[in-house]
Amino acid sequence: MERVPVLKIGDILLVSIQIDMEDQVALQLQEDLAEKIVATGCHGVIIDISALDIVDSFVGRTLATIASVSRVLDAETVVVGMRPAVAITLVELGLSLPGIRTALNVELGIEMLARSRAESAPDEDEDEDDPAAVPAP
Amino acid sequence: MERVPVLKIGDILLVSIQIDMEDQVALQLQEDLAEKIVATGCHGVIIDISALDIVDSFVGRTLATIASVSRVLDAETVVVGMRPAVAITLVELGLSLPGIRTALNVELGIEMLARSRAESAPDEDEDEDDPAAVPAP
Repeated sequence: MERVPVLKIGDILLVSIQIDMEDQVALQLQEDLAEKIVATGCHGVIIDISALDIVDSFVGRTLATIASVSRVLDAETVVVGMRPAVAITLVELGLSLPGIRTALNVELGIEMLARSRAESAPDEDEDEDDPAAVPAP
Repeated sequence: MERVPVLKIGDILLVSIQIDMEDQVALQLQEDLAEKIVATGCHGVIIDISALDIVDSFVGRTLATIASVSRVLDAETVVVGMRPAVAITLVELGLSLPGIRTALNVELGIEMLARSRAESAPDEDEDEDDPAAVPAP
C-alpha cells in the first residue's frame, strides 16, 4: 500500500502529499502523524499540497481531522503550497477549510509556527527575568 | 502529468519522491530542480526516498544525474531515507549508487550539507574577523 512519508525537520514534521488521498492512505497518514508527534514531541506539522490539482471535500475533511488530532497532541498544523486554481475551486464548492491555517509555502509555514509558538507560551521566557510574573499562590 | 514538488527550506531544496519514477517524471524533476537551484541560489539538495519500495537502475541513474547537474550548479546532493530492504536489493543487483552521498534521514542530511559547505568555504567566515586575512593589494 502506498504511504505518505512524514519527515522530521527540527521541531517540525513535514508531510508532502503527492498521491491520491484514498480512504486507506488518509487513515494511515493520520495514524503515522499522530504516532510521530508523540514519538518526537514536535510542536508543528506542515502539510504541503502543492502537488495536488484537486482538493475535494474528502481531502478537506482529512486535513481538518489531522489538524484536530494534532491540536489535541499539542501540535499546530499549517497547510502550505495551495495552488491558486485549487483555492478558487474550493471557494466555488463552498468549502472554506474551517479550522485549518494556511501559508503560501513551507518557509512561511515554518515562520508562522515559530511565531504562534512564541505567542502561545510567552511566560516561559519572561518568568526567568521578571519575578513579578510569577503567579500568585 | 504528475510532478514531484521541490520545497525550499532555508538554503536547501527538499524533494520527497513518492510516485513511480517514469521517464517523463524523472526528466521533469531534473528540469524543475535545476531551475529552482538557479532561481533560489540554494547550495544543497536533499532527496528523500523513504517512500520507495524499489530503487532500480533507472532510479539510480536518475539520482546520479540529478547529483551531477546539481554539482555543476554549485549545489550538493544527499539522498536520505533509504529503507534497509532497498539498500540490500541495490547491493544484490550490483548497484552501489556511485557519486551519490547518503544520510539516514532529512535532519542528518541537512547536517551533512552544512558541514561540507563549511569545509569547502572556510575562508568566507574567517575573513570578517581577521584583518590579517585581507588579501594583499
